[in-house]
Amino acid sequence: MSVVSVAQKADERDGDLAARMQAIGAAARAAAAKLALATTEAKNAALIAMAAALRNSGDAILAANAEDVEAARQAGRPGAFVDRLTLTPARIEAMAKGLEDIAALPDPVGEVMASWTRPNGLVVERVRVPLGVVGMIYESRPNVTADAGGLCLKAGNTIILRGGSEAIASNRAIHAALVAGLRQAGLDEAAIQLVGSTDREAVGMMLAGLDGAIDVIVPRGGKSLVARVQSEARVPVFAHLDGICHVYIHEAADLEMAKAIAVNAKMRRTGICGAAETLLVDKACAATHLGPIIAALIDAGCEVRGDAAAQSSDARVSPATEDDWATEYLDATIAVGTVAGLEDAMAHIARYGSRHTDAIVTEDRGAADCFLREVDSAIVLHNASTQFADGGEFGMGAEIGIATGRFHARGPVGVEQLTTFKYCVHGTGQTRPA
Amino acid sequence: MSVVSVAQKADERDGDLAARMQAIGAAARAAAAKLALATTEAKNAALIAMAAALRNSGDAILAANAEDVEAARQAGRPGAFVDRLTLTPARIEAMAKGLEDIAALPDPVGEVMASWTRPNGLVVERVRVPLGVVGMIYESRPNVTADAGGLCLKAGNTIILRGGSEAIASNRAIHAALVAGLRQAGLDEAAIQLVGSTDREAVGMMLAGLDGAIDVIVPRGGKSLVARVQSEARVPVFAHLDGICHVYIHEAADLEMAKAIAVNAKMRRTGICGAAETLLVDKACAATHLGPIIAALIDAGCEVRGDAAAQSSDARVSPATEDDWATEYLDATIAVGTVAGLEDAMAHIARYGSRHTDAIVTEDRGAADCFLREVDSAIVLHNASTQFADGGEFGMGAEIGIATGRFHARGPVGVEQLTTFKYCVHGTGQTRPA
Repeated sequence: MSVVSVAQKADERDGDLAARMQAIGAAARAAAAKLALATTEAKNAALIAMAAALRNSGDAILAANAEDVEAARQAGRPGAFVDRLTLTPARIEAMAKGLEDIAALPDPVGEVMASWTRPNGLVVERVRVPLGVVGMIYESRPNVTADAGGLCLKAGNTIILRGGSEAIASNRAIHAALVAGLRQAGLDEAAIQLVGSTDREAVGMMLAGLDGAIDVIVPRGGKSLVARVQSEARVPVFAHLDGICHVYIHEAADLEMAKAIAVNAKMRRTGICGAAETLLVDKACAATHLGPIIAALIDAGCEVRGDAAAQSSDARVSPATEDDWATEYLDATIAVGTVAGLEDAMAHIARYGSRHTDAIVTEDRGAADCFLREVDSAIVLHNASTQFADGGEFGMGAEIGIATGRFHARGPVGVEQLTTFKYCVHGTGQTRPA
Repeated sequence: MSVVSVAQKADERDGDLAARMQAIGAAARAAAAKLALATTEAKNAALIAMAAALRNSGDAILAANAEDVEAARQAGRPGAFVDRLTLTPARIEAMAKGLEDIAALPDPVGEVMASWTRPNGLVVERVRVPLGVVGMIYESRPNVTADAGGLCLKAGNTIILRGGSEAIASNRAIHAALVAGLRQAGLDEAAIQLVGSTDREAVGMMLAGLDGAIDVIVPRGGKSLVARVQSEARVPVFAHLDGICHVYIHEAADLEMAKAIAVNAKMRRTGICGAAETLLVDKACAATHLGPIIAALIDAGCEVRGDAAAQSSDARVSPATEDDWATEYLDATIAVGTVAGLEDAMAHIARYGSRHTDAIVTEDRGAADCFLREVDSAIVLHNASTQFADGGEFGMGAEIGIATGRFHARGPVGVEQLTTFKYCVHGTGQTRPA
């Protein structure tokens, strides 16, 4: 009997949530020790088999998802929520393709990251190893089940998935396909576990670490979820709370480039964390740049709230309040302010930003270097859109999230960031002198 | 007026600990933003000037230390405690030399750790930056004041030092020399702050992060201190609780090498975290190896507690209890057990070890590779003493401690491990396609 079915059996038998969660944690920990030693071939075979299983069980997944969607509609959930919840054949295909893409990534585990020889002949190697057990806490997007499961598997980690209660039928159907893939590749089915309970207390237990079974928590969802996780978690968390990203148009910016980057950074997709929320325009180029950039944003369908200079440059600009500089709209709205040069722009970003992603547009390399060096954000860009803040766009393959913490993983969290390392020291009998 | 003296003034004025600690945190955070941009030359000049100031104020430091030592004696502190507390001209010289050694290390800040170009022409760089503010909580060794202050400065971090109350006069005298060095190099004196209060509540405030001012806590001291820090800290911690290190003598071990490594691993210095606490001897070589290795340990002055096989190989071996396998003696005592092969040895280490440092002695490269791959410790060694678990021995220069956590820093924590990174992205006007 597999560990998963032991946990499920406990579930049916006594309904004691703490005991069930503890069983899930213990199974994840035991599976992690084995998965850390799994071959690249076995992990990739599982990922390919999972993709096939997702495609083969497309009808069952869509049927399960229809239940969730119907219940969400009945409950009067907003349209955006229902949209995130809804699966289509194309979305299922995207999940399957995503798993195949992860299979094609290099295996980070076992990589010798650095190696050096000491004067006494000791050879010191820093070798990449898995982190251990990841606890994933997310809301209504069922595709996270497949994406996070696949990424963790590739990095040799086991994962405990706790999705939103509104997506439970969809998540169960997707999880079944993932488990089928694990089984086909001969890997422990407890490598990817789904918490069956929709009890909110289960989240609290995961945040406490399940008796040391969970090494890291990754939250994916709205700000209130991330804030709860960051304040309650007793284990490390990979997350970002806000993405108040800035585009600063320096006085030496090319106007056409500035317009294109400002519009793309704000409007390409307004709901992602890398979307720009504030545009800062240097006073030195406001006369030539401010009006045209604001007009381009408004033409693209964006509401603009601005300071006095922005308002006087275009009558359609409404006044920005102090709150606007600290707001992540995640919508087609932007705050536009003028600043008195590079130092002033960086001071504004330090004060109101969330240390996620910030960009400067300029033809002045010295100003760009200063901005990239001094702005203390996970990602800083010169002459490029903030919407590039993404593991895929960085060339890391998929990402499990973006972190604004300073430890371990900063910026996009891909397979490599889901590992740690150990030191392997090769000797020939060396002892340490007194 | 410098921020330090603002904090000290608050100290004298109202004696409100929380306000004083908050002022220290705010000063550390403000100084960190500036120190992150300090040049290598300025940081090195400060380190060299600190070393000179330590040497020049040797008499004052010794006089202050004599006060602490006298008070500790009066309080009936044990000899080992008084020894750790006592400074000598040689120990002051070692601190000064340590700071000069740190000055000679490469500056990690600004290093481009990786760089790649995307198909769209974006150049992505991963650049090393300081962590921010380090909170150091330690006990009676005054040299930690200089060592930790110097390491953090080199990595561009500011530090808040909270040493044991028994060393407060010594720490104040050493801290004055460090501040003199900062001043001479034109760096903010708040880069290295010493908590003047010996109130234990100050430690609790640091563990809570001083309103977000502290990025990481590094504890140095006994197990009860580290345990308190690990359980109460609301910010990341670089630490190890136990160092239950194993030496496993595989059946294919060379006997002379096994004896030399076992004796060195246990007896070179028994009080350090990398000292071996348990010796595992393979049953397959017990007949030839067990007796001679035990005799060598006993000849070196070690007390041996063993399982039945160990006891029957030497009459001087006392029985080991279950507790012995889980004990970090930090003394001239070792537990010796026999195991039924490599798998059994690794299972013993997984069960009783502390994931710090473990070694295998064998001429069989395959067995060594298996041990190094499968033993999940920060440091694993083949044919070398566990006493090499040290940043200096690894070639990292000095270390602020050894971490057994899986995140960010694992193993010795040197200047490089006291940094994080950010992504600098260089574009030519790229926008992200829909």
